[in-house]
Amino acid sequence: MAIPKTMTCAVLYGVRDVRIEERPVPEPGPGQVLVAVSRVGVCGSDVHYYTHGRIGDFVVRAPMILGHESAGTVAALGEGVQGFAKGDRVTVEPGYTCRRCHYCKTGRYNLCPDVVFMATPPIDGAFCEYVAWPADYVFPLPEAMTLEDGAMMEPLAVGLAAVERGGVAPGDAVAVLGCGPIGLLTLQAARAAGATTLIAIDVMDFRLEHARRLGATHVVNDADGRAVEQVRAITSALQGFPPRHSGADVAFETAGSVVTTRNALAATRPGGVAVLVGLPPQPTVELDIVAAASKAIDIRGLFRYANRYPAGIALTAAGRVDVASLVTHHFSLRQAERALRFADEHKGDSLKVVVDVGD
Amino acid sequence: MAIPKTMTCAVLYGVRDVRIEERPVPEPGPGQVLVAVSRVGVCGSDVHYYTHGRIGDFVVRAPMILGHESAGTVAALGEGVQGFAKGDRVTVEPGYTCRRCHYCKTGRYNLCPDVVFMATPPIDGAFCEYVAWPADYVFPLPEAMTLEDGAMMEPLAVGLAAVERGGVAPGDAVAVLGCGPIGLLTLQAARAAGATTLIAIDVMDFRLEHARRLGATHVVNDADGRAVEQVRAITSALQGFPPRHSGADVAFETAGSVVTTRNALAATRPGGVAVLVGLPPQPTVELDIVAAASKAIDIRGLFRYANRYPAGIALTAAGRVDVASLVTHHFSLRQAERALRFADEHKGDSLKVVVDVGD
Amino acid sequence: MAIPKTMTCAVLYGVRDVRIEERPVPEPGPGQVLVAVSRVGVCGSDVHYYTHGRIGDFVVRAPMILGHESAGTVAALGEGVQGFAKGDRVTVEPGYTCRRCHYCKTGRYNLCPDVVFMATPPIDGAFCEYVAWPADYVFPLPEAMTLEDGAMMEPLAVGLAAVERGGVAPGDAVAVLGCGPIGLLTLQAARAAGATTLIAIDVMDFRLEHARRLGATHVVNDADGRAVEQVRAITSALQGFPPRHSGADVAFETAGSVVTTRNALAATRPGGVAVLVGLPPQPTVELDIVAAASKAIDIRGLFRYANRYPAGIALTAAGRVDVASLVTHHFSLRQAERALRFADEHKGDSLKVVVDVGD
Amino acid sequence: MAIPKTMTCAVLYGVRDVRIEERPVPEPGPGQVLVAVSRVGVCGSDVHYYTHGRIGDFVVRAPMILGHESAGTVAALGEGVQGFAKGDRVTVEPGYTCRRCHYCKTGRYNLCPDVVFMATPPIDGAFCEYVAWPADYVFPLPEAMTLEDGAMMEPLAVGLAAVERGGVAPGDAVAVLGCGPIGLLTLQAARAAGATTLIAIDVMDFRLEHARRLGATHVVNDADGRAVEQVRAITSALQGFPPRHSGADVAFETAGSVVTTRNALAATRPGGVAVLVGLPPQPTVELDIVAAASKAIDIRGLFRYANRYPAGIALTAAGRVDVASLVTHHFSLRQAERALRFADEHKGDSLKVVVDVGD
Repeated sequence: MAIPKTMTCAVLYGVRDVRIEERPVPEPGPGQVLVAVSRVGVCGSDVHYYTHGRIGDFVVRAPMILGHESAGTVAALGEGVQGFAKGDRVTVEPGYTCRRCHYCKTGRYNLCPDVVFMATPPIDGAFCEYVAWPADYVFPLPEAMTLEDGAMMEPLAVGLAAVERGGVAPGDAVAVLGCGPIGLLTLQAARAAGATTLIAIDVMDFRLEHARRLGATHVVNDADGRAVEQVRAITSALQGFPPRHSGADVAFETAGSVVTTRNALAATRPGGVAVLVGLPPQPTVELDIVAAASKAIDIRGLFRYANRYPAGIALTAAGRVDVASLVTHHFSLRQAERALRFADEHKGDSLKVVVDVGD
Repeated sequence: MAIPKTMTCAVLYGVRDVRIEERPVPEPGPGQVLVAVSRVGVCGSDVHYYTHGRIGDFVVRAPMILGHESAGTVAALGEGVQGFAKGDRVTVEPGYTCRRCHYCKTGRYNLCPDVVFMATPPIDGAFCEYVAWPADYVFPLPEAMTLEDGAMMEPLAVGLAAVERGGVAPGDAVAVLGCGPIGLLTLQAARAAGATTLIAIDVMDFRLEHARRLGATHVVNDADGRAVEQVRAITSALQGFPPRHSGADVAFETAGSVVTTRNALAATRPGGVAVLVGLPPQPTVELDIVAAASKAIDIRGLFRYANRYPAGIALTAAGRVDVASLVTHHFSLRQAERALRFADEHKGDSLKVVVDVGD
Repeated sequence: MAIPKTMTCAVLYGVRDVRIEERPVPEPGPGQVLVAVSRVGVCGSDVHYYTHGRIGDFVVRAPMILGHESAGTVAALGEGVQGFAKGDRVTVEPGYTCRRCHYCKTGRYNLCPDVVFMATPPIDGAFCEYVAWPADYVFPLPEAMTLEDGAMMEPLAVGLAAVERGGVAPGDAVAVLGCGPIGLLTLQAARAAGATTLIAIDVMDFRLEHARRLGATHVVNDADGRAVEQVRAITSALQGFPPRHSGADVAFETAGSVVTTRNALAATRPGGVAVLVGLPPQPTVELDIVAAASKAIDIRGLFRYANRYPAGIALTAAGRVDVASLVTHHFSLRQAERALRFADEHKGDSLKVVVDVGD
Repeated sequence: MAIPKTMTCAVLYGVRDVRIEERPVPEPGPGQVLVAVSRVGVCGSDVHYYTHGRIGDFVVRAPMILGHESAGTVAALGEGVQGFAKGDRVTVEPGYTCRRCHYCKTGRYNLCPDVVFMATPPIDGAFCEYVAWPADYVFPLPEAMTLEDGAMMEPLAVGLAAVERGGVAPGDAVAVLGCGPIGLLTLQAARAAGATTLIAIDVMDFRLEHARRLGATHVVNDADGRAVEQVRAITSALQGFPPRHSGADVAFETAGSVVTTRNALAATRPGGVAVLVGLPPQPTVELDIVAAASKAIDIRGLFRYANRYPAGIALTAAGRVDVASLVTHHFSLRQAERALRFADEHKGDSLKVVVDVGD
């Protein structure tokens, strides 16, 4: 299929202002592949840029294309690229890095200060027909995976990174606070790493039903504010001598609220780990840090992920995680703004909204 | 049920000489429970003591009861024991330790020089009706588990310890060399920890069929001596850019032969880990240590396990590992010698032989 | 020397009420040694019990002997004790544990819920002439060490545990917030583990002078509230390409104040570790958790230590840390109350106050 | 100073055939700096290529410049280079990598299959006046360091990598088998990481004297073949209850002989680590792998290093390691062949031989 000169893009011009426009198709540079985009998931960060025009210090100052959870088909190869052929189905890891700094060289490239990350101002994302991207941040999809599965590798990478940071081990008891897409993928990643007690916590029954379906052994609706108490009761009932748990081995905060941040610390057993995946909207939070420190827990922040795409692909292809069933709604590229609005307004009855760009 | 004064025991008097005799039922000391034994697995070490009267420096000099893979029912509580009640179904971790040395205090109690380990001379094992044992080395079984499952927690603990030593992570490619009970449990433990490419290697098709059934993604009959080549081919075909594997992330040697020890090192990718679970019969082995060191692999020896029973119970109860289907044959306590002989002579068509002591 | 029937003790009866009284000399139980106490350091917790009668939930309800940083001479051996002889000079690790729970068995015995810890209600401490204690929590002192050095092994163990929790590696840049005895020992422990940039922060020049003397490469008086800024400036100036630091690899909060807790998080580089050694007086603290999580740092609480005495003794005997020069003042056992008052009132011109009980 | 068109080089044409010739000065490419070489250490591998024309599978097929332990002064900057100025004194890490493969991205770039490593066929080394090299593999030297110190950063990086692989912790007892330059630097690196018992083993008293001077607490001349016995005696005498050691926590094989490889395994305590830094000349070695595995040790191979230059520079500048005193002999660039011959013939009375290329 010939590559056209121009392509359709959904461009954010300002708060609640997305325009469909034509732009030149990019040329793949040396070491890059050109990907014909097929599926792009809508992330909470896309919605937040759409509704607020910024996330913290990242402000949308010039028109920018949103979308960073993408998969598609290789359309062209830049100079020197090996290991890919036109037509290969691929998923795109949306942040590439300087490859030269301390963080890149020590395997923590997610902390590279010079990262180029899609849909983070001023870098364009994937709500468009073509993306040119470094080949080593593009991963082939096995037969067993659909392009839609491919687009889900991005949020799955977050879940896998959370589980890696948490050090989940076989037989562990984990608590996941917040059962949106990231929470549900973290839950599944923890299960894939061997956790056997999986406590899902949310305030929406819709989400808890999905959690149950995807492997939660216990679901807790925290409408009554008793989630921590229930985590302690569940884990104390686990057999052993003497009871080895009072609290989760690892607790994952994925909801980004003050109360779930506090609860994550309180729900962690002495010597356990609380992973902060979400971030509360306000910068400072009053935390019971004395209790947390006294029980010698680790509080580990997460910033994106490094090297998690290969594991995500392997787990999905092997059927260890189910990413497909998280996709609840579809929109076309020309409907990208509707997709963003829908995702914003339907947190209680949708999970992942996907923009279908191409075939 | 009243506890009798004496109990039936199967006692090893010498090479191929097991006698059924009556001995006094032990009294549980302070902190101990008395367990009415129900099921005891036959281990390769039991068979070796039976056929050779020794394993390396451990020599059977006085009559000794074999058997260390046991489960049963709590019959009495020693002074100060809490958390148990008569009738509780339990599994018994067969080695307890000094609790005071450097190894005990740093969590590696398997290396305690003063360990008391069942069926290792001169300590009696569990081919008898009652065992008195420290309560913290006795673990309650959840509803979901049978007593036979309970007896299997011992070899499963070995598999889990091997996987812990290997550092298996989600998405890993592992090779298991040797598919006897330990190999099959290591395979399942690796799968439970998230390994997605599971290459099982043996020379007996009977065992490889079980490996396939229990989750191996690839089975290799090494009758032609091409196992290493095949591991390299399988792992090189895994997708990624550039190919991230040529060899297994983690290779487990469980067969205890010279050739599998060499192959384990050769089958490991640069920077990977080879775990030596089995031990070759001769003390020294000619190894290609230069190639191993040049690719910067870790060769990690395993000696028993520490703290793996709770994880094994949790994984079994959750259905993540299947220990039950490894039990292929049963004998009564009075047939203990037949059980040992059978296990010795039927390596090619049996997996785990169990002695049914009580109900 | 014959052991008397009774001994002199300094007993806390209530807030600011210490009485000298005679009590029976304890008998060493099985596995215990009787130690004739020689030197006991005064810890901030001793002072706090003296001035407040409680620390958090730990309330002094009955008369209790304070003091838990002790060293002395073996006076008698309980049943079964090996490896000690009367007259051996020893230091006493002040908390012994159940040896049976999950925490004890996994090497984190500091989290044992049944720990028996000196001078924590209702357990008596060492401001007395004799202490009977389990032999495996008593450590012989090498020739090179004085009994006073021995008493200092307790706070040094805290510093070593902090450094272990922080994962300090050779060449690291660390910041120590608070230069009391614990801060100064943490600083030295970090240096012994290979840290080469050692930034000491306090508001008292007296303490910063000691920090400088003990190996700090930079001292920062935070009277102007610019400590975080200075840590960033110092670490950014470290050579490398591109600058690998903006913030400490590991920051240690040892002052137990709200501002130092906040500063510890802010002074840590992306991907680094903040260890909370001290605890602020109020339970909840408003923290900039979003910034901390966004830079993917670990916040690790510390609760006492496990297995740090052997390392502390080895480092002290080898001259890698200097504990002796931290002792600034001495009192006799009969002056124990004066010692507590002095330590309370002289934070600005004393470091470690020691009670000389015996020779 | 103007950069000339051509430069003097010492080129290996074949076994024992080094010729001095003029070659064009290289142009620094984008992201590279041009370094005017000042000091270059002679490594055992240089000597081996000189005397044998090959090391294992690496064969010198075309004329090649030897030398990979270099330091010098920045003479020119390629396009886009920041953070350097002409005249900066620098050391050069001699291997740069693809930056794109699994190994590069996970922080183990030493295992990159596409590494470009100086003086490894067919890549030219630093026995010449100018080298063009990627700026992120070039490190500025602090004031406190000489250019000769800078050249020593390469073998120090090996020692630091060995210590990192060994997991040396404060208070550890280590054994270093082989006290050539790599052994002496490993010894110092272990000391800098906190090891307090440092046992140096060699058969040459000349080297053991240097080991003693550089921090060894015990030196053992293995002429009588009793080194392992002595390591056990030394470590068993370390105080603790019960004796925590019988063998080294970490043993480093740096001599590359069969006997030291065997001894390294035998000298390691149960649960300890043996690091193989050197490599025996023959590919396979008969090892007592059963004893090693039974005591659950880790045998860890080392292949070069990753990310160790910044730590090496920091430790040297801070005076924690002494690299300068290892340099025993100097030759000029025109004497490069004499330097190689000298290093080959004077193992018993020289340590590091340096080629002085420029000022």
